[in-house]
Amino acid sequence: MEKPAAAEHPIHDMMVRRWSPRAFAPRPLPRDQILTLLEAARWAASSFNQQPWHFLVATREDEERFAALLDCLVPGNQVWARNASLLIVTVTKRTFDHNDKPNSCCVHDIGLAACQLVLQATEMGLATHQMAGIEPDRIRERYGVPEGYDPVTAIAVGHAGDPDSLPDDLREMELEARARRPFADWVFADGWGNPAGY
Amino acid sequence: MEKPAAAEHPIHDMMVRRWSPRAFAPRPLPRDQILTLLEAARWAASSFNQQPWHFLVATREDEERFAALLDCLVPGNQVWARNASLLIVTVTKRTFDHNDKPNSCCVHDIGLAACQLVLQATEMGLATHQMAGIEPDRIRERYGVPEGYDPVTAIAVGHAGDPDSLPDDLREMELEARARRPFADWVFADGWGNPAGY
Repeated sequence: MEKPAAAEHPIHDMMVRRWSPRAFAPRPLPRDQILTLLEAARWAASSFNQQPWHFLVATREDEERFAALLDCLVPGNQVWARNASLLIVTVTKRTFDHNDKPNSCCVHDIGLAACQLVLQATEMGLATHQMAGIEPDRIRERYGVPEGYDPVTAIAVGHAGDPDSLPDDLREMELEARARRPFADWVFADGWGNPAGY
Repeated sequence: MEKPAAAEHPIHDMMVRRWSPRAFAPRPLPRDQILTLLEAARWAASSFNQQPWHFLVATREDEERFAALLDCLVPGNQVWARNASLLIVTVTKRTFDHNDKPNSCCVHDIGLAACQLVLQATEMGLATHQMAGIEPDRIRERYGVPEGYDPVTAIAVGHAGDPDSLPDDLREMELEARARRPFADWVFADGWGNPAGY
């Protein structure tokens, strides 16, 4: 299923096609595709080139690891993410290596890396769904995440599936129209709430 | 000047070409290009589709506004960002609209929107440089940013310039090779620090 963005200005096709489905067809992802996805994340920008991102990963063929990582999502996400081909939990490092000071962009930069990964996946015809709904304490304990590092999100990557495979409530969300706020609500000049005229 | 990523696996060309120069040629950016950049940001993913991003923007033709926004960067960034065509300060909303609860991804999702903007800009042959170095208190005061919202980053967008236009220390950074950590340092399976084999 495709759900292209109703873009009002011409943006790149991969941004039009990227969306966050819940219906995945449970098939493996070739290793070379996984390498390319990780490479896309790797070349994201980051504050002082810290690259604060760390990924915990599991492919569906590796059943035990996959089940362990799936179990780190909130139950509502496990329902559909179990059909993904690749699960990723993102973890950020709170401080800079070069001076041990707090990195104010450590969570922001996870977003930069994740965005590159999901756009690259879209370009390759894959489906992705990023999740805030994770179990940080379980992740910390199970994977031994050290002090100074924080789990941030999970990302499901896989093959687009049939919306009819979803439970009713999720199928409804799957078919909902996509919407975004107009620029006047969030692009300001001069002062807060003053639209910049775009 | 181009500084392509030394990617070891085939990633999209716009990700290869994206980097963060400091040398900008001070020329205006057409309005339709600005609309496309904002549209790219607009269609980013976000937790519960909150779209927590708010942008304060100024173009270089609008001299007074541009000077005011430039002045919200740390001095080291003002040196070179003054030649950008468009300056953006990103601001996030800490809570969700639908339940007033904290949005754990509010800063992360600024990264998603910013990434789409800078990749779209790269595709259009523009140069971008994201900055953590901003003056949050000055931004709050000058633009009346309300309680519950936080300035996160700034983004300079413009036309690539000549590295020789930069002061010596910045020119040196401009010409440095780009580098990224190997997967073994940050892609783990099973437990923290155990490379996943990519």
